[in-house]
Amino acid sequence: MLSFPDRLADAVRKKGPLCVGIDPRWDALPTAIREVYADLPPADRAAAAVLDFGLRVLELVAPFAGVVKPQSAFFELLGPPGMRVLQELLIRANDLGFVTILDAKRGDIASTATAYADAAFAGAAIDNEVVPVWDADSLTVNPYLGEDAVEPFVTAARASGRGLFVLVRTSNAGAGLFQNLVCDGKPIYLHVGEAVARWNANTIGQCGLGAIGAVVGATHPRELVELRAALPNVWFLVPGYGAQGGTAADIRAAYRPDGLGAVVNSSRGVTFPFRPDDPAWEAKVTEAARKASAELRS
Amino acid sequence: MLSFPDRLADAVRKKGPLCVGIDPRWDALPTAIREVYADLPPADRAAAAVLDFGLRVLELVAPFAGVVKPQSAFFELLGPPGMRVLQELLIRANDLGFVTILDAKRGDIASTATAYADAAFAGAAIDNEVVPVWDADSLTVNPYLGEDAVEPFVTAARASGRGLFVLVRTSNAGAGLFQNLVCDGKPIYLHVGEAVARWNANTIGQCGLGAIGAVVGATHPRELVELRAALPNVWFLVPGYGAQGGTAADIRAAYRPDGLGAVVNSSRGVTFPFRPDDPAWEAKVTEAARKASAELRS
Repeated sequence: MLSFPDRLADAVRKKGPLCVGIDPRWDALPTAIREVYADLPPADRAAAAVLDFGLRVLELVAPFAGVVKPQSAFFELLGPPGMRVLQELLIRANDLGFVTILDAKRGDIASTATAYADAAFAGAAIDNEVVPVWDADSLTVNPYLGEDAVEPFVTAARASGRGLFVLVRTSNAGAGLFQNLVCDGKPIYLHVGEAVARWNANTIGQCGLGAIGAVVGATHPRELVELRAALPNVWFLVPGYGAQGGTAADIRAAYRPDGLGAVVNSSRGVTFPFRPDDPAWEAKVTEAARKASAELRS
Repeated sequence: MLSFPDRLADAVRKKGPLCVGIDPRWDALPTAIREVYADLPPADRAAAAVLDFGLRVLELVAPFAGVVKPQSAFFELLGPPGMRVLQELLIRANDLGFVTILDAKRGDIASTATAYADAAFAGAAIDNEVVPVWDADSLTVNPYLGEDAVEPFVTAARASGRGLFVLVRTSNAGAGLFQNLVCDGKPIYLHVGEAVARWNANTIGQCGLGAIGAVVGATHPRELVELRAALPNVWFLVPGYGAQGGTAADIRAAYRPDGLGAVVNSSRGVTFPFRPDDPAWEAKVTEAARKASAELRS
Protein backbone atom coordinates (compact mmCIF):
# COMPACT_ATOMS: atom_id res chain seq x y z
CA MET A 1 0.00 0.00 0.00
CA LEU A 2 1.19 3.53 -0.76
CA SER A 3 2.51 5.74 2.04
CA PHE A 4 0.33 8.64 3.21
CA PRO A 5 2.36 11.31 1.38
CA ASP A 6 2.20 9.28 -1.85
CA ARG A 7 -1.57 8.76 -1.54
CA LEU A 8 -1.92 12.52 -1.09
CA ALA A 9 0.32 13.10 -4.13
CA ASP A 10 -1.83 10.74 -6.21
CA ALA A 11 -5.01 12.56 -5.15
CA VAL A 12 -3.51 15.96 -6.04
CA ARG A 13 -2.15 14.71 -9.39
CA LYS A 14 -5.55 13.25 -10.31
CA LYS A 15 -7.90 15.96 -9.06
CA GLY A 16 -5.82 18.97 -8.11
CA PRO A 17 -5.12 20.49 -4.69
CA LEU A 18 -8.70 21.23 -3.60
CA CYS A 19 -9.62 19.84 -0.18
CA VAL A 20 -13.30 20.14 0.68
CA GLY A 21 -14.00 20.92 4.33
CA ILE A 22 -17.15 19.35 5.76
CA ASP A 23 -18.42 21.74 8.47
CA PRO A 24 -22.16 21.03 8.63
CA ARG A 25 -24.21 23.64 10.46
CA TRP A 26 -27.86 22.71 11.08
CA ASP A 27 -29.15 26.21 10.25
CA ALA A 28 -27.34 26.22 6.91
CA LEU A 29 -28.53 22.80 5.69
CA PRO A 30 -30.93 22.72 2.74
CA THR A 31 -34.52 23.10 3.96
CA ALA A 32 -35.43 20.22 1.66
CA ILE A 33 -33.20 17.88 3.67
CA ARG A 34 -34.19 19.23 7.09
CA GLU A 35 -37.88 18.73 6.25
CA VAL A 36 -37.36 15.02 5.54
CA TYR A 37 -36.49 14.42 9.20
CA ALA A 38 -38.87 16.97 10.75
CA ASP A 39 -40.67 14.30 12.81
CA LEU A 40 -37.54 13.04 14.60
CA PRO A 41 -36.46 14.37 18.02
CA PRO A 42 -33.99 17.30 17.67
CA ALA A 43 -30.67 15.48 18.14
CA ASP A 44 -31.65 12.62 15.80
CA ARG A 45 -33.20 15.07 13.33
CA ALA A 46 -30.01 17.11 13.13
CA ALA A 47 -27.76 14.05 12.93
CA ALA A 48 -29.85 12.39 10.20
CA ALA A 49 -29.98 15.60 8.14
CA VAL A 50 -26.23 16.19 8.53
CA LEU A 51 -25.48 12.64 7.39
CA ASP A 52 -27.83 12.96 4.43
CA PHE A 53 -26.26 16.30 3.44
CA GLY A 54 -22.70 15.11 4.03
CA LEU A 55 -23.13 11.97 1.92
CA ARG A 56 -24.64 14.02 -0.90
CA VAL A 57 -21.80 16.58 -0.73
CA LEU A 58 -19.18 13.81 -0.95
CA GLU A 59 -20.75 12.57 -4.19
CA LEU A 60 -21.13 16.09 -5.64
CA VAL A 61 -17.52 17.14 -5.01
CA ALA A 62 -15.85 13.80 -5.87
CA PRO A 63 -15.12 14.81 -9.50
CA PHE A 64 -13.35 17.99 -8.35
CA ALA A 65 -11.50 17.09 -5.13
CA GLY A 66 -9.47 14.10 -3.95
CA VAL A 67 -9.26 15.21 -0.31
CA VAL A 68 -11.99 15.93 2.25
CA LYS A 69 -11.65 17.39 5.75
CA PRO A 70 -14.50 16.88 8.21
CA GLN A 71 -14.35 19.38 11.09
CA SER A 72 -14.89 17.42 14.32
CA ALA A 73 -16.46 20.36 16.19
CA PHE A 74 -19.64 20.43 14.10
CA PHE A 75 -20.20 16.72 14.72
CA GLU A 76 -19.31 16.97 18.43
CA LEU A 77 -21.93 19.71 18.72
CA LEU A 78 -24.57 17.08 17.89
CA GLY A 79 -23.29 14.81 20.68
CA PRO A 80 -22.91 11.03 20.33
CA PRO A 81 -25.30 10.84 17.33
CA GLY A 82 -23.14 13.48 15.64
CA MET A 83 -19.99 11.47 16.28
CA ARG A 84 -21.69 8.45 14.70
CA VAL A 85 -22.38 10.61 11.63
CA LEU A 86 -18.71 11.68 11.54
CA GLN A 87 -17.77 8.00 11.57
CA GLU A 88 -20.18 7.15 8.74
CA LEU A 89 -19.02 10.08 6.60
CA LEU A 90 -15.37 9.05 7.04
CA ILE A 91 -16.22 5.47 6.02
CA ARG A 92 -18.09 6.70 2.94
CA ALA A 93 -15.30 9.16 2.02
CA ASN A 94 -12.83 6.30 2.22
CA ASP A 95 -15.07 4.09 0.04
CA LEU A 96 -15.23 6.91 -2.53
CA GLY A 97 -11.41 7.03 -2.63
CA PHE A 98 -10.95 10.39 -0.89
CA VAL A 99 -7.89 11.00 1.26
CA THR A 100 -9.42 12.07 4.59
CA ILE A 101 -8.15 14.69 7.03
CA LEU A 102 -9.89 14.65 10.42
CA ASP A 103 -9.71 18.27 11.54
CA ALA A 104 -9.80 17.87 15.32
CA LYS A 105 -6.63 19.80 16.30
CA ARG A 106 -5.88 17.31 19.06
CA GLY A 107 -3.01 17.78 21.48
CA ASP A 108 -2.31 16.47 24.98
CA ILE A 109 0.33 14.85 27.18
CA ALA A 110 1.76 11.54 26.03
CA SER A 111 -0.66 8.94 27.43
CA THR A 112 -3.66 11.04 26.40
CA ALA A 113 -2.16 11.90 23.01
CA THR A 114 -1.86 8.15 22.37
CA ALA A 115 -5.58 7.72 23.04
CA TYR A 116 -6.46 10.52 20.59
CA ALA A 117 -4.06 9.06 18.01
CA ASP A 118 -5.52 5.56 18.40
CA ALA A 119 -9.03 7.00 18.02
CA ALA A 120 -7.93 8.68 14.78
CA PHE A 121 -5.92 5.83 13.28
CA ALA A 122 -5.46 2.34 14.75
CA GLY A 123 -8.70 2.13 16.71
CA ALA A 124 -9.35 0.89 20.25
CA ALA A 125 -7.85 -2.41 21.37
CA ILE A 126 -10.55 -4.21 23.37
CA ASP A 127 -9.24 -7.57 24.58
CA ASN A 128 -8.10 -9.25 21.36
CA GLU A 129 -10.17 -7.17 18.99
CA VAL A 130 -9.51 -3.78 17.45
CA VAL A 131 -12.50 -1.48 17.16
CA PRO A 132 -12.01 1.22 14.50
CA VAL A 133 -13.09 4.69 15.59
CA TRP A 134 -12.45 7.48 13.04
CA ASP A 135 -10.03 5.50 10.85
CA ALA A 136 -8.94 8.75 9.16
CA ASP A 137 -5.99 9.03 6.79
CA SER A 138 -4.67 12.03 8.72
CA LEU A 139 -5.32 14.26 11.72
CA THR A 140 -4.65 17.91 12.55
CA VAL A 141 -2.54 18.34 15.71
CA ASN A 142 -1.89 21.33 18.00
CA PRO A 143 1.81 21.62 18.99
CA TYR A 144 1.55 23.93 22.03
CA LEU A 145 2.24 21.09 24.51
CA GLY A 146 5.62 20.37 22.93
CA GLU A 147 7.68 17.54 21.51
CA ASP A 148 6.76 14.71 23.88
CA ALA A 149 3.08 15.53 23.31
CA VAL A 150 3.33 15.46 19.50
CA GLU A 151 5.59 12.41 19.41
CA PRO A 152 2.82 9.85 20.17
CA PHE A 153 0.85 11.23 17.22
CA VAL A 154 3.94 10.94 14.99
CA THR A 155 4.60 7.38 16.19
CA ALA A 156 0.96 6.34 15.69
CA ALA A 157 0.80 7.94 12.24
CA ARG A 158 3.97 6.16 11.12
CA ALA A 159 2.89 2.81 12.60
CA SER A 160 -0.41 2.89 10.68
CA GLY A 161 0.77 4.57 7.47
CA ARG A 162 -1.22 7.73 8.18
CA GLY A 163 -0.29 11.41 8.36
CA LEU A 164 -0.48 14.51 10.52
CA PHE A 165 -0.91 18.21 9.85
CA VAL A 166 0.61 20.19 12.71
CA LEU A 167 -0.66 23.74 13.30
CA VAL A 168 2.17 26.08 12.34
CA ARG A 169 0.62 29.36 11.14
CA THR A 170 -3.16 29.32 11.35
CA SER A 171 -5.45 31.29 9.04
CA ASN A 172 -7.37 33.34 11.62
CA ALA A 173 -6.77 37.09 11.85
CA GLY A 174 -5.54 36.90 15.45
CA ALA A 175 -3.21 33.96 14.89
CA GLY A 176 -0.16 36.14 15.37
CA LEU A 177 -0.77 36.87 19.07
CA PHE A 178 1.50 33.97 20.04
CA GLN A 179 2.52 32.43 16.68
CA ASN A 180 4.35 35.58 15.55
CA LEU A 181 6.20 36.31 18.79
CA VAL A 182 9.91 36.36 17.96
CA CYS A 183 12.22 34.15 20.03
CA ASP A 184 15.93 33.62 19.35
CA GLY A 185 15.52 35.70 16.19
CA LYS A 186 12.67 33.57 14.80
CA PRO A 187 8.87 33.73 15.14
CA ILE A 188 7.25 30.90 17.11
CA TYR A 189 5.60 29.54 13.94
CA LEU A 190 9.07 29.01 12.45
CA HIS A 191 10.26 27.23 15.60
CA VAL A 192 7.21 24.97 15.25
CA GLY A 193 7.87 24.59 11.52
CA GLU A 194 11.41 23.42 12.18
CA ALA A 195 10.11 20.83 14.67
CA VAL A 196 7.69 19.63 11.97
CA ALA A 197 10.63 19.29 9.57
CA ARG A 198 12.40 17.07 12.13
CA TRP A 199 9.33 14.89 12.71
CA ASN A 200 8.81 14.66 8.94
CA ALA A 201 12.40 13.82 8.02
CA ASN A 202 12.15 10.02 8.22
CA THR A 203 8.76 9.76 6.53
CA ILE A 204 9.57 10.91 2.97
CA GLY A 205 7.69 8.99 0.28
CA GLN A 206 8.30 8.43 -3.44
CA CYS A 207 6.82 11.87 -4.12
CA GLY A 208 9.61 13.53 -2.14
CA LEU A 209 7.27 14.75 0.60
CA GLY A 210 6.65 13.27 4.05
CA ALA A 211 3.81 12.18 6.32
CA ILE A 212 4.08 14.96 8.92
CA GLY A 213 2.59 18.07 7.37
CA ALA A 214 1.99 21.65 8.45
CA VAL A 215 -1.11 23.85 8.59
CA VAL A 216 -0.25 27.23 7.02
CA GLY A 217 -3.03 29.73 6.35
CA ALA A 218 -3.66 31.12 2.88
CA THR A 219 -4.27 34.45 4.59
CA HIS A 220 -0.54 34.87 5.30
CA PRO A 221 1.17 34.81 1.85
CA ARG A 222 4.51 36.04 3.19
CA GLU A 223 4.69 33.24 5.76
CA LEU A 224 3.68 30.73 3.07
CA VAL A 225 6.72 31.74 1.00
CA GLU A 226 8.99 31.64 4.04
CA LEU A 227 7.71 28.25 5.26
CA ARG A 228 7.76 26.64 1.79
CA ALA A 229 11.44 27.57 1.54
CA ALA A 230 12.18 26.37 5.08
CA LEU A 231 10.21 23.09 4.77
CA PRO A 232 10.79 21.81 1.22
CA ASN A 233 9.66 18.22 1.99
CA VAL A 234 6.60 19.03 4.12
CA TRP A 235 3.02 18.79 2.87
CA PHE A 236 1.03 21.95 3.68
CA LEU A 237 -2.66 21.97 4.51
CA VAL A 238 -3.73 25.49 3.53
CA PRO A 239 -6.94 26.78 5.14
CA GLY A 240 -8.35 30.26 4.65
CA TYR A 241 -8.99 30.05 0.89
CA GLY A 242 -12.37 31.42 -0.17
CA ALA A 243 -14.69 32.38 2.70
CA GLN A 244 -11.75 33.51 4.86
CA GLY A 245 -10.32 35.72 2.10
CA GLY A 246 -7.27 33.86 0.76
CA THR A 247 -6.96 33.87 -3.06
CA ALA A 248 -5.46 31.36 -5.52
CA ALA A 249 -2.65 33.88 -6.11
CA ASP A 250 -1.90 34.05 -2.38
CA ILE A 251 -1.50 30.29 -2.36
CA ARG A 252 0.79 29.87 -5.38
CA ALA A 253 3.84 30.00 -3.10
CA ALA A 254 2.65 26.90 -1.22
CA TYR A 255 3.33 24.58 -4.19
CA ARG A 256 6.69 23.14 -5.13
CA PRO A 257 7.91 23.43 -8.74
CA ASP A 258 6.44 19.96 -9.41
CA GLY A 259 2.99 21.28 -8.45
CA LEU A 260 2.80 19.13 -5.31
CA GLY A 261 3.23 20.21 -1.68
CA ALA A 262 -0.11 21.74 -0.75
CA VAL A 263 -3.76 20.83 -0.37
CA VAL A 264 -6.01 23.86 -0.20
CA ASN A 265 -9.12 23.69 1.93
CA SER A 266 -12.43 25.34 1.22
CA SER A 267 -15.35 24.58 3.55
CA ARG A 268 -18.22 27.08 3.45
CA GLY A 269 -17.20 28.34 0.00
CA VAL A 270 -17.78 24.94 -1.59
CA THR A 271 -20.36 23.27 0.66
CA PHE A 272 -22.66 26.21 1.49
CA PRO A 273 -22.86 28.43 -1.63
CA PHE A 274 -26.68 28.44 -1.37
CA ARG A 275 -29.52 29.73 0.80
CA PRO A 276 -31.23 26.90 2.72
CA ASP A 277 -34.45 27.29 0.74
CA ASP A 278 -32.67 27.12 -2.65
CA PRO A 279 -34.10 24.13 -4.58
CA ALA A 280 -30.98 24.18 -6.81
CA TRP A 281 -28.54 23.77 -3.90
CA GLU A 282 -26.89 20.68 -5.41
CA ALA A 283 -26.11 22.48 -8.67
CA LYS A 284 -24.65 25.35 -6.63
CA VAL A 285 -22.35 22.97 -4.70
CA THR A 286 -21.23 21.28 -7.93
CA GLU A 287 -20.51 24.63 -9.57
CA ALA A 288 -18.65 25.96 -6.49
CA ALA A 289 -16.48 22.82 -6.37
CA ARG A 290 -15.83 22.96 -10.14
CA LYS A 291 -14.91 26.65 -9.95
CA ALA A 292 -12.61 26.27 -6.91
CA SER A 293 -10.92 23.25 -8.46
CA ALA A 294 -10.33 25.05 -11.78
CA GLU A 295 -9.05 28.17 -10.02
CA LEU A 296 -6.58 26.17 -7.93
CA ARG A 297 -5.36 24.10 -10.91
CA SER A 298 -4.74 27.13 -13.15
CA MET B 1 -27.08 30.91 40.89
CA LEU B 2 -23.43 31.28 41.91
CA SER B 3 -20.83 32.26 39.33
CA PHE B 4 -18.39 29.57 38.17
CA PRO B 5 -15.45 30.88 40.26
CA ASP B 6 -17.67 30.99 43.36
CA ARG B 7 -18.95 27.44 42.79
CA LEU B 8 -15.34 26.32 42.50
CA ALA B 9 -14.47 28.22 45.70
CA ASP B 10 -17.38 26.52 47.51
CA ALA B 11 -16.19 23.11 46.36
CA VAL B 12 -12.62 23.79 47.51
CA ARG B 13 -13.75 25.20 50.88
CA LYS B 14 -15.95 22.16 51.51
CA LYS B 15 -13.72 19.36 50.23
CA GLY B 16 -10.27 20.79 49.57
CA PRO B 17 -8.44 21.33 46.29
CA LEU B 18 -8.40 17.73 45.02
CA CYS B 19 -9.76 17.30 41.48
CA VAL B 20 -10.17 13.68 40.40
CA GLY B 21 -9.33 13.03 36.76
CA ILE B 22 -11.44 10.38 35.04
CA ASP B 23 -9.19 8.76 32.38
CA PRO B 24 -10.67 5.27 31.96
CA ARG B 25 -8.43 2.80 30.13
CA TRP B 26 -10.07 -0.52 29.22
CA ASP B 27 -7.00 -2.56 30.15
CA ALA B 28 -6.80 -0.98 33.60
CA LEU B 29 -10.46 -1.48 34.56
CA PRO B 30 -11.21 -3.96 37.35
CA THR B 31 -11.53 -7.47 35.93
CA ALA B 32 -14.67 -7.87 38.03
CA ILE B 33 -16.37 -5.09 36.05
CA ARG B 34 -15.04 -6.17 32.65
CA GLU B 35 -16.36 -9.72 33.21
CA VAL B 36 -19.91 -8.47 33.77
CA TYR B 37 -20.09 -7.29 30.14
CA ALA B 38 -18.02 -10.08 28.56
CA ASP B 39 -20.87 -11.16 26.27
CA LEU B 40 -21.32 -7.74 24.63
CA PRO B 41 -19.57 -6.81 21.35
CA PRO B 42 -16.22 -5.04 21.99
CA ALA B 43 -17.28 -1.38 21.64
CA ASP B 44 -20.42 -1.84 23.77
CA ARG B 45 -18.51 -4.01 26.26
CA ALA B 46 -15.87 -1.35 26.77
CA ALA B 47 -18.39 1.50 26.96
CA ALA B 48 -20.60 -0.34 29.46
CA ALA B 49 -17.64 -1.24 31.68
CA VAL B 50 -16.24 2.31 31.55
CA LEU B 51 -19.63 3.74 32.55
CA ASP B 52 -19.99 1.23 35.38
CA PHE B 53 -16.46 2.00 36.63
CA GLY B 54 -16.84 5.76 36.22
CA LEU B 55 -20.14 5.91 38.12
CA ARG B 56 -18.62 3.86 40.96
CA VAL B 57 -15.52 6.08 41.09
CA LEU B 58 -17.69 9.21 41.32
CA GLU B 59 -19.42 7.78 44.41
CA LEU B 60 -16.17 6.59 46.00
CA VAL B 61 -14.35 9.92 45.66
CA ALA B 62 -17.31 12.22 46.45
CA PRO B 63 -16.39 12.52 50.17
CA PHE B 64 -12.85 13.65 49.30
CA ALA B 65 -13.14 15.79 46.17
CA GLY B 66 -15.55 18.48 44.95
CA VAL B 67 -14.20 18.64 41.40
CA VAL B 68 -13.91 15.95 38.70
CA LYS B 69 -12.19 16.16 35.32
CA PRO B 70 -13.12 13.60 32.65
CA GLN B 71 -10.48 13.37 29.92
CA SER B 72 -12.29 13.43 26.57
CA ALA B 73 -9.63 11.36 24.76
CA PHE B 74 -10.38 8.13 26.64
CA PHE B 75 -14.07 8.40 25.78
CA GLU B 76 -13.41 9.42 22.16
CA LEU B 77 -11.27 6.28 21.85
CA LEU B 78 -14.44 4.22 22.39
CA GLY B 79 -16.20 6.10 19.57
CA PRO B 80 -19.83 7.25 19.74
CA PRO B 81 -20.72 4.81 22.56
CA GLY B 82 -17.81 6.28 24.53
CA MET B 83 -19.06 9.81 23.97
CA ARG B 84 -22.45 8.71 25.31
CA VAL B 85 -20.69 7.42 28.42
CA LEU B 86 -18.90 10.76 28.80
CA GLN B 87 -22.28 12.47 28.64
CA GLU B 88 -23.79 10.15 31.27
CA LEU B 89 -20.82 10.55 33.63
CA LEU B 90 -21.03 14.35 33.36
CA ILE B 91 -24.76 14.24 34.15
CA ARG B 92 -24.15 12.00 37.17
CA ALA B 93 -21.22 14.14 38.37
CA ASN B 94 -23.48 17.17 38.19
CA ASP B 95 -26.24 15.35 40.13
CA LEU B 96 -23.69 14.46 42.82
CA GLY B 97 -22.76 18.15 43.16
CA PHE B 98 -19.29 17.98 41.62
CA VAL B 99 -17.93 20.95 39.70
CA THR B 100 -17.01 19.41 36.35
CA ILE B 101 -14.02 20.20 34.12
CA LEU B 102 -14.21 18.69 30.63
CA ASP B 103 -10.56 18.15 29.70
CA ALA B 104 -10.74 18.35 25.91
CA LYS B 105 -8.12 21.09 25.25
CA ARG B 106 -10.22 22.48 22.41
CA GLY B 107 -9.00 25.30 20.21
CA ASP B 108 -9.90 26.44 16.70
CA ILE B 109 -10.79 29.47 14.56
CA ALA B 110 -13.80 31.52 15.61
CA SER B 111 -16.76 29.78 13.95
CA THR B 112 -15.41 26.35 14.90
CA ALA B 113 -14.47 27.46 18.42
CA THR B 114 -18.10 28.52 18.88
CA ALA B 115 -19.27 25.01 17.95
CA TYR B 116 -16.87 23.44 20.50
CA ALA B 117 -17.96 25.95 23.14
CA ASP B 118 -21.65 25.29 22.47
CA ALA B 119 -21.01 21.55 22.71
CA ALA B 120 -19.34 22.09 26.10
CA PHE B 121 -21.81 24.57 27.57
CA ALA B 122 -25.01 25.86 25.96
CA GLY B 123 -25.77 22.84 23.78
CA ALA B 124 -26.90 22.65 20.16
CA ALA B 125 -29.75 24.88 18.97
CA ILE B 126 -31.93 22.72 16.69
CA ASP B 127 -34.86 24.78 15.41
CA ASN B 128 -36.46 26.10 18.60
CA GLU B 129 -35.02 23.50 20.95
CA VAL B 130 -31.66 23.35 22.69
CA VAL B 131 -30.06 19.92 22.91
CA PRO B 132 -27.50 19.70 25.73
CA VAL B 133 -24.27 17.96 24.76
CA TRP B 134 -21.57 17.86 27.49
CA ASP B 135 -23.14 20.51 29.73
CA ALA B 136 -19.85 20.80 31.64
CA ASP B 137 -19.09 23.52 34.21
CA SER B 138 -15.78 24.27 32.53
CA LEU B 139 -13.56 23.30 29.61
CA THR B 140 -9.80 23.22 29.01
CA VAL B 141 -8.72 25.35 26.01
CA ASN B 142 -5.52 25.46 23.92
CA PRO B 143 -4.39 29.06 23.18
CA TYR B 144 -2.01 28.47 20.26
CA LEU B 145 -4.47 29.86 17.68
CA GLY B 146 -4.58 33.22 19.44
CA GLU B 147 -7.00 35.77 20.84
CA ASP B 148 -9.81 35.60 18.26
CA ALA B 149 -9.80 31.82 18.63
CA VAL B 150 -10.06 31.87 22.44
CA GLU B 151 -12.57 34.73 22.53
CA PRO B 152 -15.60 32.61 21.45
CA PHE B 153 -14.86 30.25 24.36
CA VAL B 154 -14.64 33.21 26.75
CA THR B 155 -17.89 34.66 25.42
CA ALA B 156 -19.71 31.31 25.64
CA ALA B 157 -18.40 30.64 29.17
CA ARG B 158 -19.54 34.07 30.39
CA ALA B 159 -22.93 33.80 28.68
CA SER B 160 -23.66 30.46 30.37
CA GLY B 161 -21.99 31.08 33.73
CA ARG B 162 -19.28 28.51 33.04
CA GLY B 163 -15.49 28.64 33.12
CA LEU B 164 -12.36 27.90 31.10
CA PHE B 165 -8.88 26.67 31.95
CA VAL B 166 -6.45 27.86 29.29
CA LEU B 167 -3.21 25.90 28.79
CA VAL B 168 -0.38 28.11 30.06
CA ARG B 169 2.40 25.83 31.33
CA THR B 170 1.58 22.17 30.88
CA SER B 171 2.88 19.39 33.13
CA ASN B 172 4.65 17.22 30.55
CA ALA B 173 8.45 17.01 30.54
CA GLY B 174 8.74 18.43 27.02
CA ALA B 175 6.32 21.31 27.58
CA GLY B 176 9.13 23.84 27.40
CA LEU B 177 9.93 23.29 23.71
CA PHE B 178 7.65 26.17 22.74
CA GLN B 179 6.14 27.33 26.07
CA ASN B 180 9.53 28.39 27.49
CA LEU B 181 10.84 30.19 24.40
CA VAL B 182 11.62 33.75 25.47
CA CYS B 183 10.07 36.57 23.43
CA ASP B 184 10.28 40.29 24.33
CA GLY B 185 12.02 39.28 27.53
CA LYS B 186 9.26 36.87 28.64
CA PRO B 187 8.66 33.18 28.06
CA ILE B 188 5.68 32.28 25.86
CA TYR B 189 3.81 30.80 28.84
CA LEU B 190 3.92 34.22 30.52
CA HIS B 191 2.62 35.93 27.36
CA VAL B 192 -0.24 33.43 27.42
CA GLY B 193 -0.71 33.95 31.16
CA GLU B 194 -1.07 37.70 30.66
CA ALA B 195 -3.71 37.10 27.97
CA VAL B 196 -5.56 34.86 30.44
CA ALA B 197 -5.43 37.67 33.02
CA ARG B 198 -7.07 40.02 30.46
CA TRP B 199 -9.80 37.49 29.57
CA ASN B 200 -10.36 36.83 33.29
CA ALA B 201 -10.49 40.48 34.39
CA ASN B 202 -14.24 41.06 33.97
CA THR B 203 -15.30 37.72 35.44
CA ILE B 204 -14.24 38.08 39.10
CA GLY B 205 -16.68 36.51 41.57
CA GLN B 206 -17.32 37.06 45.30
CA CYS B 207 -14.30 34.83 46.05
CA GLY B 208 -11.98 37.29 44.32
CA LEU B 209 -11.13 34.90 41.49
CA GLY B 210 -12.48 34.79 37.94
CA ALA B 211 -14.01 32.37 35.45
CA ILE B 212 -11.07 32.18 33.02
CA GLY B 213 -8.44 29.97 34.64
CA ALA B 214 -5.00 28.69 33.70
CA VAL B 215 -3.50 25.21 33.48
CA VAL B 216 -0.13 25.24 35.27
CA GLY B 217 1.70 21.96 35.89
CA ALA B 218 2.71 20.87 39.39
CA THR B 219 5.93 19.66 37.80
CA HIS B 220 7.15 23.24 37.35
CA PRO B 221 7.25 24.75 40.90
CA ARG B 222 9.24 27.82 39.83
CA GLU B 223 6.72 28.71 37.15
CA LEU B 224 3.88 28.13 39.62
CA VAL B 225 5.37 30.77 41.93
CA GLU B 226 5.93 33.17 39.03
CA LEU B 227 2.45 32.69 37.56
CA ARG B 228 0.65 32.90 40.95
CA ALA B 229 2.33 36.29 41.48
CA ALA B 230 1.52 37.45 37.94
CA LEU B 231 -2.09 36.22 37.95
CA PRO B 232 -3.45 36.86 41.47
CA ASN B 233 -7.14 36.56 40.44
CA VAL B 234 -6.86 33.53 38.18
CA TRP B 235 -7.93 30.01 39.18
CA PHE B 236 -5.21 27.45 38.42
CA LEU B 237 -5.91 23.88 37.34
CA VAL B 238 -2.77 22.04 38.44
CA PRO B 239 -2.09 18.71 36.69
CA GLY B 240 1.00 16.57 37.28
CA TYR B 241 0.41 15.81 40.97
CA GLY B 242 0.98 12.15 41.89
CA ALA B 243 1.58 9.84 38.94
CA GLN B 244 3.46 12.56 37.02
CA GLY B 245 5.73 13.34 39.99
CA GLY B 246 4.48 16.67 41.40
CA THR B 247 4.31 16.78 45.23
CA ALA B 248 2.02 18.66 47.64
CA ALA B 249 5.04 20.82 48.54
CA ASP B 250 5.60 21.70 44.87
CA ILE B 251 2.02 22.90 44.68
CA ARG B 252 1.90 25.07 47.81
CA ALA B 253 2.83 28.13 45.75
CA ALA B 254 -0.34 27.74 43.65
CA TYR B 255 -2.65 28.73 46.51
CA ARG B 256 -3.42 32.25 47.60
CA PRO B 257 -3.08 33.20 51.29
CA ASP B 258 -6.83 32.47 51.68
CA GLY B 259 -6.21 28.86 50.57
CA LEU B 260 -8.15 29.32 47.34
CA GLY B 261 -6.78 29.69 43.81
CA ALA B 262 -5.93 26.15 42.74
CA VAL B 263 -7.56 22.81 42.08
CA VAL B 264 -5.07 19.97 41.92
CA ASN B 265 -5.75 17.07 39.59
CA SER B 266 -4.89 13.45 40.18
CA SER B 267 -6.08 10.90 37.63
CA ARG B 268 -4.26 7.55 37.68
CA GLY B 269 -3.02 8.09 41.24
CA VAL B 270 -6.57 8.17 42.63
CA THR B 271 -8.60 6.14 40.14
CA PHE B 272 -6.16 3.30 39.30
CA PRO B 273 -4.23 2.46 42.51
CA PHE B 274 -5.01 -1.25 42.02
CA ARG B 275 -4.22 -4.17 39.73
CA PRO B 276 -7.21 -5.14 37.55
CA ASP B 277 -7.64 -8.47 39.36
CA ASP B 278 -7.62 -6.87 42.84
CA PRO B 279 -10.97 -7.72 44.52
CA ALA B 280 -10.40 -4.82 46.95
CA TRP B 281 -10.11 -2.18 44.17
CA GLU B 282 -12.87 -0.01 45.64
CA ALA B 283 -11.16 0.19 49.02
CA LYS B 284 -7.92 1.13 47.24
CA VAL B 285 -9.64 3.98 45.33
CA THR B 286 -11.27 5.25 48.53
CA GLU B 287 -7.93 5.16 50.37
CA ALA B 288 -6.06 6.84 47.51
CA ALA B 289 -8.67 9.65 47.38
CA ARG B 290 -8.62 10.06 51.17
CA LYS B 291 -4.81 10.18 51.24
CA ALA B 292 -4.52 12.65 48.33
CA SER B 293 -7.20 14.87 49.84
CA ALA B 294 -5.53 14.89 53.27
CA GLU B 295 -2.11 15.57 51.76
CA LEU B 296 -3.41 18.51 49.73
CA ARG B 297 -5.35 19.98 52.67
CA SER B 298 -2.39 19.80 55.07
